[in-house]
Amino acid sequence: MKSLLLVAHGSRRQASNSEVTAIAQLLRKRVEGHYRLTECAFLELAEPSIPEGIEKLIEAGSNEIVILPYFLSAGRHIQEDVPGIVHSVQDKYPNIKMTIAPYLGEDDKVVDLLADISMQVSA
Amino acid sequence: MKSLLLVAHGSRRQASNSEVTAIAQLLRKRVEGHYRLTECAFLELAEPSIPEGIEKLIEAGSNEIVILPYFLSAGRHIQEDVPGIVHSVQDKYPNIKMTIAPYLGEDDKVVDLLADISMQVSA
Repeated sequence: MKSLLLVAHGSRRQASNSEVTAIAQLLRKRVEGHYRLTECAFLELAEPSIPEGIEKLIEAGSNEIVILPYFLSAGRHIQEDVPGIVHSVQDKYPNIKMTIAPYLGEDDKVVDLLADISMQVSA
Repeated sequence: MKSLLLVAHGSRRQASNSEVTAIAQLLRKRVEGHYRLTECAFLELAEPSIPEGIEKLIEAGSNEIVILPYFLSAGRHIQEDVPGIVHSVQDKYPNIKMTIAPYLGEDDKVVDLLADISMQVSA
């Protein structure tokens, strides 16, 4: 059973965290044929944490988890923090397959989306 | 003459700023039929600043500028900082039309992109 965990930075501003929760809900509907469960988690400043999010999916029966970073650039969070946390949890659950997906800003299609938004503003 | 300014947060890490510059270059090619010039600028920690970016476009002959925030959530930067800076520059150049586009994370299509990325990882 394969599940998806959308991971965002987390904010002191609750409205920003709620935006992430809302996106995870929309994403859940879009990928439900592929991922049995879709949840979100936060690197810092908000809950659930990444380990809590992963463990929630494991407790619900997932044996394969894809971690999808909702980040725009490859800073320290993407290069060190998120992998470090995931690897720690992986050590605790060696029988669960965990994979970190490319972060959002890494995908070339983000440029297409920026182009769409810019052209809608000024048609 | 209409131009586009992609605005990112800016980072102490030069590689993150270079990612934004690279995205602006790709975006420039995608929108060149619509926007005569496409540049990027940074809210903080990197250069050019937003006022410098806007003034560069004005000096090159732009009379209409769309500012596109490369941000994922509507925090203080999106709600206060970017509009505040743009409005200050607007006061200085009343004959230039300046419009702030929706930020990246506000567009529903970001969910489609996340769905694509997640399914490519685990096909």
